[in-house]
Amino acid sequence: MVKSWATLGVDLHVEPTGTGVRRGLTDALRDAVRTGRLAPGTRLPSSRALATDLGIARNTVADAYADLVAEGWLTARQGSGTRVAERAVVPPADTTPPRRLHTRPAYDLIPGTPDLASFPRTEWLKAARRAFTAAPYQALGYGDPRGRVELRTALAAYLSRVRGVRADPEHILISAGISSGLRLIGAVLRARGAQDIAVESYGLPAHWQILDETGLRTRPLPFDELGTAPARLTDESAVLLTPAHQFPMGLPLRHDRRSAAVDWARRTGGLVLEDDYDGEFRYDRQPIGALQGLDPDHVVYLGTASKSLAPGLRLAWMVLPPSLAEEVVKAKGGIDTCGVLDQLTLAEFLTSGAYDRHVRSARLRYRRRRDTLVDALAQHAPDVHVTGIAAGFHAVLSLPPGTEQSVIQAAAWQGLAVHALSFYRHEHALADPLDALVVGYGTPPDHAWAGALEALCRVLP
Amino acid sequence: MVKSWATLGVDLHVEPTGTGVRRGLTDALRDAVRTGRLAPGTRLPSSRALATDLGIARNTVADAYADLVAEGWLTARQGSGTRVAERAVVPPADTTPPRRLHTRPAYDLIPGTPDLASFPRTEWLKAARRAFTAAPYQALGYGDPRGRVELRTALAAYLSRVRGVRADPEHILISAGISSGLRLIGAVLRARGAQDIAVESYGLPAHWQILDETGLRTRPLPFDELGTAPARLTDESAVLLTPAHQFPMGLPLRHDRRSAAVDWARRTGGLVLEDDYDGEFRYDRQPIGALQGLDPDHVVYLGTASKSLAPGLRLAWMVLPPSLAEEVVKAKGGIDTCGVLDQLTLAEFLTSGAYDRHVRSARLRYRRRRDTLVDALAQHAPDVHVTGIAAGFHAVLSLPPGTEQSVIQAAAWQGLAVHALSFYRHEHALADPLDALVVGYGTPPDHAWAGALEALCRVLP
Repeated sequence: MVKSWATLGVDLHVEPTGTGVRRGLTDALRDAVRTGRLAPGTRLPSSRALATDLGIARNTVADAYADLVAEGWLTARQGSGTRVAERAVVPPADTTPPRRLHTRPAYDLIPGTPDLASFPRTEWLKAARRAFTAAPYQALGYGDPRGRVELRTALAAYLSRVRGVRADPEHILISAGISSGLRLIGAVLRARGAQDIAVESYGLPAHWQILDETGLRTRPLPFDELGTAPARLTDESAVLLTPAHQFPMGLPLRHDRRSAAVDWARRTGGLVLEDDYDGEFRYDRQPIGALQGLDPDHVVYLGTASKSLAPGLRLAWMVLPPSLAEEVVKAKGGIDTCGVLDQLTLAEFLTSGAYDRHVRSARLRYRRRRDTLVDALAQHAPDVHVTGIAAGFHAVLSLPPGTEQSVIQAAAWQGLAVHALSFYRHEHALADPLDALVVGYGTPPDHAWAGALEALCRVLP
Repeated sequence: MVKSWATLGVDLHVEPTGTGVRRGLTDALRDAVRTGRLAPGTRLPSSRALATDLGIARNTVADAYADLVAEGWLTARQGSGTRVAERAVVPPADTTPPRRLHTRPAYDLIPGTPDLASFPRTEWLKAARRAFTAAPYQALGYGDPRGRVELRTALAAYLSRVRGVRADPEHILISAGISSGLRLIGAVLRARGAQDIAVESYGLPAHWQILDETGLRTRPLPFDELGTAPARLTDESAVLLTPAHQFPMGLPLRHDRRSAAVDWARRTGGLVLEDDYDGEFRYDRQPIGALQGLDPDHVVYLGTASKSLAPGLRLAWMVLPPSLAEEVVKAKGGIDTCGVLDQLTLAEFLTSGAYDRHVRSARLRYRRRRDTLVDALAQHAPDVHVTGIAAGFHAVLSLPPGTEQSVIQAAAWQGLAVHALSFYRHEHALADPLDALVVGYGTPPDHAWAGALEALCRVLP
């Protein structure tokens, strides 16, 4: 018995030093009980015996036992020692679906996630402390459904300065990601009787699905060598665009097409939904301003902290035309849905300049990655054409016709997760088919980037 | 003209050195066009002239012009120079609604919000630091739609220990408040073809509205001196109950009625939605265990940090019957909607014991408040009968028939916000009408409690 406990200790990597020992041991024991590895009624080794076996202090084991007794996993009775409680094990329900096995790929080049290892944790915690200390206690209550006024005010200033957005904090709405915002807009459009919404031939399938779930039909616009062509817009209720940096193809919307989209919205009363997901990251020239600045009454601006900071914050924002604001807030259900602390922290991050500093440093890092990507491709895969690299942190690598799926499969064999361009192609796309990879070069942590790049070069034709 | 351009450069703090010149100039020009300072059609100075005036490189001006042409603010035509685009200026919208004036009452006794001034800020920040420092960087990515596994695991242990809930972390779903969870359940029931859902004759109107918005019709159950009577349940798809502490009336659901609800669910395949909003706060005896423990396959357990900590966290949880879990996760749209940092912090708060410590201290504070409330009423309003005080942090104060509205009005004159019982009465309630106040005695900060209590006593008959 004691033997098997020693093994348990080793198997579960209970660190034998520091303050984490007790916790580690407690967790390991709890898991063992919970999963049924230790059957109800099982008598545990004495704290002395287990401590000797694991090479840790006896008190630590005694404390871990006491914790688990307090939580109800174990029972301790004078004379009969410590045992696994009789009712501790919940019999596994037969209907439980088998737990999915997430085999994490060795290298992740799926676009859409920034370099999370570079998240400014220390700065963020400092800002959280400052923001939380300064906040009135009322801030912790049920809040304004639009989100905290501190954040909306900070965003209005930031978006005006950096993206040329015309934003009144009154008409900004904080949402848990752009997708949550899109869901609200879709619901409002549907409630107004809308049936169709125009989208780009290439885009994010998750967004099309959200619109689909609200009851709208997505109709793709033509896509040509100059990008999305909005001239085909007719009686759609709205059009979803990525003007600054077409996702995933990577070009900006040309100025005459920007004008055409806004003109259509004015003429028909339609709405332009401007998805400005990575507007902060532009390398080759000055950022292209937001379309919203051209006509705030007909454009919904959607921005997010998911690319500039991290998706896990679940913080995004919409700048709404005044005429739409009330309906959208109402559709949100009358209460705020995002945690106050993160909102206050992001507001502090923006106003203190920490956000700008982080974006600048991230921009530099992504630009360097992009340059090594381009260099490596030039050397190892000279036939592959790279596009969409003037901004953001993903690139499109064109492949010889008919090779897309085989390259994706070869990548999978190399432990390399990467998406085919066809993944982002609308089923009714109006665009010539193109074999290509969409490579998110921002995602890997620094230490994994060289390996990811090598793996990528190996699978390219 | 050139004169005014020089002024423009100074006014807008265009730095004459460094890499920011082009951006500063572009922003300044864009603003000038947008605000109408530069009228449509205005011809801009040549890039050479403006560059000389501002003491910067000619290329910088040319680049700024080119950016603004690309963005649609300016037009450039061979021979006619650069001009402000005709359609660039948007007149300010007249449709902006006037900003609402929120006059905060002097004393807030609206039930539902805990004492926010006692939120354990220091402990929370410490837990945030520990949790955030320990988290792998991948935790900051797009997460499991059910929420972070650390939090679901901590909740499973906590709910099992404290509330007798039988919870597998796999079937717990984190949501932004109980209302978000209810919205998901409502949507799933509706998608399954459900039409009606039973509710209590007294309850939270916001919850009825959410169910209503998902397309379900709420049908109240009879309410008598023993509380909600589930015997009348027939073919409803589900029943929403507050078994531990009826909201707002304050009684627990009697054991035979608990059984009746579960029996109905088993017999008909219906679902019991158990709203356990303040299950931690019970004063007079051991907490009444959750109904869910009786039958995890037919009860959805809904809990929240909104009463035990603060609504601003926007963290709640559902323990789902295994057979329902997949549909609800799907209805959530495939991604997590709650910030990762707060989730990790709450997990750390739970596992470190800080949560228990906070709840115990809050329980003590609310109990003292309750005792001073009961004492003050006995002294100043002996005819008022207080009920529902064995748990939670609100009480029901019965009033002489026909006086409810006049008391509410008198309270408003005293700067005292308090709700009439009728506010919580379903429009089709099956219950004898009762004049009463629902007093949330947990809400005021300590320093305002005595004043709030005095004001309350002044308005009572």
